[in-house]
Amino acid sequence: MIIVLKPDATDEQIDHIVEKLDDLNLRPEVSRGIKRTLIGVIGEEDVIRNAPLRAFPGVEDVMPILKPYKLASREFQQEDSEFNFGHGVKVGGGNLAMIAGPCAIENEEVLLEIAREVKAAGANILRGGAFKPRTSPYSFQGLGKEGLKILRAVGDELQMPVITEVMDPRQVELVDKYSDAFQIGARNMQNFNLLSEVGQTHRPVMLKRGMSATVNDLLMSAEYILAAGNKEVVLCERGIRSFDSSTRNLLDLAMVPNVKGNCHLPIVIDPSHATGRPDLIPSMALASIAAGADGVHIEVHSRPEEAMSDGQQALLPDQYAEVMQQMKTLAEVFHKTIPEARGA
Amino acid sequence: MIIVLKPDATDEQIDHIVEKLDDLNLRPEVSRGIKRTLIGVIGEEDVIRNAPLRAFPGVEDVMPILKPYKLASREFQQEDSEFNFGHGVKVGGGNLAMIAGPCAIENEEVLLEIAREVKAAGANILRGGAFKPRTSPYSFQGLGKEGLKILRAVGDELQMPVITEVMDPRQVELVDKYSDAFQIGARNMQNFNLLSEVGQTHRPVMLKRGMSATVNDLLMSAEYILAAGNKEVVLCERGIRSFDSSTRNLLDLAMVPNVKGNCHLPIVIDPSHATGRPDLIPSMALASIAAGADGVHIEVHSRPEEAMSDGQQALLPDQYAEVMQQMKTLAEVFHKTIPEARGA
Amino acid sequence: MIIVLKPDATDEQIDHIVEKLDDLNLRPEVSRGIKRTLIGVIGEEDVIRNAPLRAFPGVEDVMPILKPYKLASREFQQEDSEFNFGHGVKVGGGNLAMIAGPCAIENEEVLLEIAREVKAAGANILRGGAFKPRTSPYSFQGLGKEGLKILRAVGDELQMPVITEVMDPRQVELVDKYSDAFQIGARNMQNFNLLSEVGQTHRPVMLKRGMSATVNDLLMSAEYILAAGNKEVVLCERGIRSFDSSTRNLLDLAMVPNVKGNCHLPIVIDPSHATGRPDLIPSMALASIAAGADGVHIEVHSRPEEAMSDGQQALLPDQYAEVMQQMKTLAEVFHKTIPEARGA
Amino acid sequence: MIIVLKPDATDEQIDHIVEKLDDLNLRPEVSRGIKRTLIGVIGEEDVIRNAPLRAFPGVEDVMPILKPYKLASREFQQEDSEFNFGHGVKVGGGNLAMIAGPCAIENEEVLLEIAREVKAAGANILRGGAFKPRTSPYSFQGLGKEGLKILRAVGDELQMPVITEVMDPRQVELVDKYSDAFQIGARNMQNFNLLSEVGQTHRPVMLKRGMSATVNDLLMSAEYILAAGNKEVVLCERGIRSFDSSTRNLLDLAMVPNVKGNCHLPIVIDPSHATGRPDLIPSMALASIAAGADGVHIEVHSRPEEAMSDGQQALLPDQYAEVMQQMKTLAEVFHKTIPEARGA
Repeated sequence: MIIVLKPDATDEQIDHIVEKLDDLNLRPEVSRGIKRTLIGVIGEEDVIRNAPLRAFPGVEDVMPILKPYKLASREFQQEDSEFNFGHGVKVGGGNLAMIAGPCAIENEEVLLEIAREVKAAGANILRGGAFKPRTSPYSFQGLGKEGLKILRAVGDELQMPVITEVMDPRQVELVDKYSDAFQIGARNMQNFNLLSEVGQTHRPVMLKRGMSATVNDLLMSAEYILAAGNKEVVLCERGIRSFDSSTRNLLDLAMVPNVKGNCHLPIVIDPSHATGRPDLIPSMALASIAAGADGVHIEVHSRPEEAMSDGQQALLPDQYAEVMQQMKTLAEVFHKTIPEARGA
Repeated sequence: MIIVLKPDATDEQIDHIVEKLDDLNLRPEVSRGIKRTLIGVIGEEDVIRNAPLRAFPGVEDVMPILKPYKLASREFQQEDSEFNFGHGVKVGGGNLAMIAGPCAIENEEVLLEIAREVKAAGANILRGGAFKPRTSPYSFQGLGKEGLKILRAVGDELQMPVITEVMDPRQVELVDKYSDAFQIGARNMQNFNLLSEVGQTHRPVMLKRGMSATVNDLLMSAEYILAAGNKEVVLCERGIRSFDSSTRNLLDLAMVPNVKGNCHLPIVIDPSHATGRPDLIPSMALASIAAGADGVHIEVHSRPEEAMSDGQQALLPDQYAEVMQQMKTLAEVFHKTIPEARGA
Repeated sequence: MIIVLKPDATDEQIDHIVEKLDDLNLRPEVSRGIKRTLIGVIGEEDVIRNAPLRAFPGVEDVMPILKPYKLASREFQQEDSEFNFGHGVKVGGGNLAMIAGPCAIENEEVLLEIAREVKAAGANILRGGAFKPRTSPYSFQGLGKEGLKILRAVGDELQMPVITEVMDPRQVELVDKYSDAFQIGARNMQNFNLLSEVGQTHRPVMLKRGMSATVNDLLMSAEYILAAGNKEVVLCERGIRSFDSSTRNLLDLAMVPNVKGNCHLPIVIDPSHATGRPDLIPSMALASIAAGADGVHIEVHSRPEEAMSDGQQALLPDQYAEVMQQMKTLAEVFHKTIPEARGA
Repeated sequence: MIIVLKPDATDEQIDHIVEKLDDLNLRPEVSRGIKRTLIGVIGEEDVIRNAPLRAFPGVEDVMPILKPYKLASREFQQEDSEFNFGHGVKVGGGNLAMIAGPCAIENEEVLLEIAREVKAAGANILRGGAFKPRTSPYSFQGLGKEGLKILRAVGDELQMPVITEVMDPRQVELVDKYSDAFQIGARNMQNFNLLSEVGQTHRPVMLKRGMSATVNDLLMSAEYILAAGNKEVVLCERGIRSFDSSTRNLLDLAMVPNVKGNCHLPIVIDPSHATGRPDLIPSMALASIAAGADGVHIEVHSRPEEAMSDGQQALLPDQYAEVMQQMKTLAEVFHKTIPEARGA
């Protein structure tokens, strides 16, 4: 950490800061220049991070040097993480998660219909929402426990692992009973109590990036889950807020190599929420594989006109099958495996 | 709602959409132009909003006309809302909330010291965090119940109403016991279950705008609380994400007249989080009053070097007293009242 | 275009608007609903666009339906455009522009060294800046005419077409003399006089998207060039402003299918400026091809430590050769051609 | 400047960097920590800024310490700048610029009508565009020289200084002949050749902030004008791009104290372009004065239905008179002067 002093910082102010740092068992080194004096602080940045050094008289700026996350970092674990979602589906370390399904679970018939289609196309994890975070209190909020049971039944019948969103710490126990993995939605990326709660389970957690979260914010939220004891975190990019309303969000695909440089966790891309437009999803799915992502998450619905949530952004099963075919070709080019979901 | 059809939409597609709208008891009117056909839909937009019309073949775009919120709107209630925080402090309808206090409650001695100073300066609501949402799992997370007790004790001693953040639906009952009002933080603005939970209490809720929330998103979150039965929602602008890192966030002061045109709820501005810089807080506090805000929320700490959270952005009590003095002058110019907190 | 009236619009106001529209030879259709009255306007949107309808009493909102660009649109030209840059290098229509070279032209020796390397790797257009838009007046501003001569000489020697930036209408004639194509930089995307000026030449123009330009803004700027008579416009995405400072800009790769749905012009991606980080460039170059881009623009420098501009974001020639090799593989998968630059 | 080395930087790499710095006559100080080695560089940052240190092997990050602008900085000139616009109108140093007029100059009759009204209300500088930067090539582009003559004639008749936009270096001489001051529009904030050109004149320049410009970018563009010899630069905030489309742009009012801390130049706020909504302009004008701005720029039109550009965002003369009245009250509260435009 580097402390930059104001041009008119006094010797007393400098001494006062140095004392404080000494008290914290840090090693300050003062460099006096013509225009500015700097204090370099070498030692545990965590200790320093919690000290309000910017509040000290004479301080102009405080610049951190080290990353604030540890368990998520490559320094903690150099090799890529790889997790087991069940039914033979591994994610990470060269294995691609192909997650597909409807936005919301509506009833068993439709979910089974969609699940059969996406599995036949090559999807290896089934998604579907039972608890739906909706902007309006007047919109369909999901089937709740009933939806979870349907999801489990369909997953069992087709021998596919399933994933579903959890929105509330009070739902964790229930979701844990029915689902193979947890999804934390973008709006809950910084719902820290929820992160701690899923951090105490033994299931993989797919953590979606918040709409205004930096890459660093995302990794710090992952760190909450890791620090609570659950090592199985999959990151998910689903677009961030931007100024152009021609797409629902802005897909930040460069976050894939950006994260991978510093972090060992797998990354899945969700072009459905990132663009909100079925006509853009296929090329963004292909670009995701080329960018080095560990999976692609796509919303698929066989009867979009009857969908109870986000029907307008779902691919039809045929469209999904077509883009899966191209993703398989790219997976081969990049020496990646798409594990097949299967019985024990 | 207006449905814009693709240039090549067929008659069958148009008939299919019209049928669907008839089924929903809506009245579609088809206008055939040279370049595009439009279908105007007159009736309850809520019904339409939940129908995935964009998923219908032949549809290019769907444009809503009406606002999606009701209880928060001026159409529902024309006059400004005014709520009672206790100890004689009304907020809204010409009464200004002057909320001040430390970021986190650290111990009773310091909180009492700060509270005395801000009350003497003119603050009428005391703030302090017992549950702290922190980006890092390794940072101080607040004193919890112990903190709530301290806050209550100090509020009682000084006869000031108190407000504190609630982060988790499971904390609502506890916070309800100790605090006069709830604060929902920016990171939880779309924690819909938490909104519903505080919507079932009988205390004012200050709802902070999320970092990437549009004004419309904020009002929809307020609608969750109102729809659950609690009419006492105060909105709070605390800055949104932007690209210039020279301030912590970007204060959107134009949201004050923007919201007030459509919504009857009071609005408080938080220049502390919006700027993150003590040198910018005073002029933004004054600008808030001039913009028509119903209150200003400022973090104050008497010993910022020892603060356990955000010490670098707190004003010193003297600085707070100075800006309060100027705010009082402006309040007079704009014919606003700053209620005094007092015993029963 | 749809005009939405205020809930309390009077009949006089409605009549007044209808009269105005009749005067403009447009055909208004009034739909009176319970909550709002709408006026649909069918006819040339250009005429309407310039009428300040939002300023009329009783008007709440005006919603355009048609795209504001014409010559750039698929409605004007359905098939993809394809342009000739010289030396056998076609761009668009399945042909990929592989543009490479240093940020700035520094001297003939270095440029020739770099050009040889990138050509050997497979680049087919050489780039280099003679006029450099620099944020600081104290930074190196480019060699000017001297630089243009060097660029021409190296292009001739290696039989490669060359492209270079033009910043000022007064430079167009000079650059036209030495370069095979013009580049308009992001900062000049809305320098409308410059656009008109290059619109009067007969050379391809690569138009870079501004840092805060929507896709629509970009296409409107292309329209300026097309409307001035020059049909050879290549669009270039180089990242837009966002809130995460871990990359220089935010690459919006979804703009490729987004633009291609409505517009026939080729699109080149510039991962060098979009990310500003050599470690992210290769995977973003590959993702660009997978997303359907018509080319990739990469800054390469053989001696980055001596570079006079942006050395820190350049790839080394070896790194470029490696990513070109992978891009060739992807080009084959997607049935695209990388034309070879060659003598007449 | 601080150079942060990678964890695995070798001694050879460190020596290589130190040598380079010695060659540049800088004084590097190496601090070896447990996790990272840092090199602090003390001396002229300009020299360092142009050296591509980030391109050196072993370098992880380079962090500048000093501001990159000089002539614009408080270190160069401590007291606030104050400029003379003519007709007794000083701007800065406690004097407020009240700039008003139509978006575009349409004809002499209308301009005179508007000018009389705004002058009577208290405006002291008349604005009107003769060269209009329009997003569409098919929109009205301004009257050009004819418009300049009208502006001059009206300014002379009413004895008001006038300001108008210049878009092209080739127009500077012409505009210099007719106008008292230059306006550089947001789209040209980084049109560096235009900045240099107006930097060689002797008239005040009002430089508008670009839609995606940081405060630092704005000050660097001001530096271009100052470095070319013209000391009379007035900054203008007119809103930046953001994600909420309910206002045209997002007004960053905190930039006033943010800039004033580091820079001596006056700052004018333009709520017309910042919000694009007449209903928001008055409260943002008042907030601007309260925030410490040196002036307010408002578009006014007496016949908005006939306006040829941006009629929907103009205030009516009556509305302007009303907000001017309130601004006068606030000016008194803050001890500011609104100079009156008058004959010699």
